[in-house]
Amino acid sequence: MTEAPWWSLSTAHTVLEATATAAFALSGVIEGARKRLDAVGVSVVAMLAAFGGGTLRDVLLDRRPFFWVQHAGYAWGVLALVVAAMLFMRARHLHPTERAMQWPDALGLGLFAASGTQIALAAQMPSLVAVLMGVMTAVFGGVLRDIVCNQIPATFSDHRPYAVCAFAGGWVVVAANAAGVGDTTALLAGAAAAMGLRLLALALDWRLPAWRTDD
Amino acid sequence: MTEAPWWSLSTAHTVLEATATAAFALSGVIEGARKRLDAVGVSVVAMLAAFGGGTLRDVLLDRRPFFWVQHAGYAWGVLALVVAAMLFMRARHLHPTERAMQWPDALGLGLFAASGTQIALAAQMPSLVAVLMGVMTAVFGGVLRDIVCNQIPATFSDHRPYAVCAFAGGWVVVAANAAGVGDTTALLAGAAAAMGLRLLALALDWRLPAWRTDD
Amino acid sequence: MTEAPWWSLSTAHTVLEATATAAFALSGVIEGARKRLDAVGVSVVAMLAAFGGGTLRDVLLDRRPFFWVQHAGYAWGVLALVVAAMLFMRARHLHPTERAMQWPDALGLGLFAASGTQIALAAQMPSLVAVLMGVMTAVFGGVLRDIVCNQIPATFSDHRPYAVCAFAGGWVVVAANAAGVGDTTALLAGAAAAMGLRLLALALDWRLPAWRTDD
Repeated sequence: MTEAPWWSLSTAHTVLEATATAAFALSGVIEGARKRLDAVGVSVVAMLAAFGGGTLRDVLLDRRPFFWVQHAGYAWGVLALVVAAMLFMRARHLHPTERAMQWPDALGLGLFAASGTQIALAAQMPSLVAVLMGVMTAVFGGVLRDIVCNQIPATFSDHRPYAVCAFAGGWVVVAANAAGVGDTTALLAGAAAAMGLRLLALALDWRLPAWRTDD
Repeated sequence: MTEAPWWSLSTAHTVLEATATAAFALSGVIEGARKRLDAVGVSVVAMLAAFGGGTLRDVLLDRRPFFWVQHAGYAWGVLALVVAAMLFMRARHLHPTERAMQWPDALGLGLFAASGTQIALAAQMPSLVAVLMGVMTAVFGGVLRDIVCNQIPATFSDHRPYAVCAFAGGWVVVAANAAGVGDTTALLAGAAAAMGLRLLALALDWRLPAWRTDD
Repeated sequence: MTEAPWWSLSTAHTVLEATATAAFALSGVIEGARKRLDAVGVSVVAMLAAFGGGTLRDVLLDRRPFFWVQHAGYAWGVLALVVAAMLFMRARHLHPTERAMQWPDALGLGLFAASGTQIALAAQMPSLVAVLMGVMTAVFGGVLRDIVCNQIPATFSDHRPYAVCAFAGGWVVVAANAAGVGDTTALLAGAAAAMGLRLLALALDWRLPAWRTDD
């Protein structure tokens, strides 16, 4: 991906990526704090939430170095964020509300789903597998966060579209790629589709079909 | 494994493998539904149950491509199964009973334990490691399913022989291999041993020794 | 690492390593028994606790063969330990107390944190990443053990310094390495630092800062 066109937009891309990573890390901080983890636990959960999805994707694709190895600055950033959040939340008795998190979280969902799909396509994966890799990239950090915090992953049980938006965004990347548009366009289209769907789903209070069981 | 002899029996093998994969996926559907996951959660848990064990084995053996990457049809099949199960269970208020699942599940246990052991032996692993890889292949999908559903893996806590049948079947493969029989024979012997032990254990209601503790 | 200087001290190193591995495995036995797992579950949890951290590190570093593949004797040893512990605990109604476990557990913490960091440095990882790999090596076995036993990892929630001691020990290895001392010295210094800190923290009853939240 080193000469992929979107690196020419690298500043904008870095800002978006850092925002999305911070949003995911912050979701880990909030959940860790809610579960009364200690400072170390909160840091670990924040890192898992921020880097878990991309790391799993890279392990499955056998791709090295990891994002957080190549850019160790991100790992330092998450540590700094945890310390800042800890001091700030203590001092101000202020928490980021769920609503305030929706936009950066949706950004992360879209961006990571699209870039994950693109990376998997570049590694010659079949379409469905590439899309699933994109979904994993976007969703699995949160899944690991919830597993470590000993609860059923919210993504799988809150009946709101989340992974399914990433799934749709991934297919947009596949379609754009098949249509022969440039990588940057495909990435932006996929990310926008996933992010837009997620925000729409929240605004209109869409629900996933409930699974009715007898027992 | 591309020219391994048992591919000459490929139709029979594919039917068995598809049956076993479907049984594992269905166990994920049932558990996900019981935990009231949404449709996405049920799909993910079904995929984890179906592909988790083999994927972990391949990651540990550094073996690519994964089964579900090489044969993306299986991933589509699991998705179709989830949708079908969802519609069917809703319409008919009918659930596969635990008893109805015993045979295909035991088939999966035997088949995946034997093939996992064989793949690890082909990768020059020592015997014990190869057998453990076989056990992982057979058992770890269910373990991941239970972890995501936030419960102690049933395999480790229901005091019925399950992993231990896979362990025995793996050693049968090792012994058959050492005796110089063909790959197909070794696979069938190991799979039959594990499957037979499992069905026998269920029929005769064998229990694993309880661990008595004072606290 | 095959000609690393500390292999010339190989007997001492092997004794320490075996002690530490046994301590980690025993922590899995104790927790598995407390959760009423069956014999298979206890064995698996013991293996996860003993080998999980190093295996995760090696998967992330793309390093093969794993410790327990290269030295399959360790896997046999853990199985034997489980059987022995099972018989012994049943016969004597005796459990290793938490206090009795503190020393070997701290040894494992120090040794695995230092050797994990050193292995990651040898693989050209940046300093922070190498230290995090060391922490993972030391801590992740216990995390997996707790996740399988369906509880929040103790390391993250008991408010006692544990991972943070491994973190400090890892930085000692990085500093010693930068200062140009030999590998053996760096390993011993890092291990001693982490182990000493852990024992000091327990003796003086240090607590990690609590995370105060409003909800």
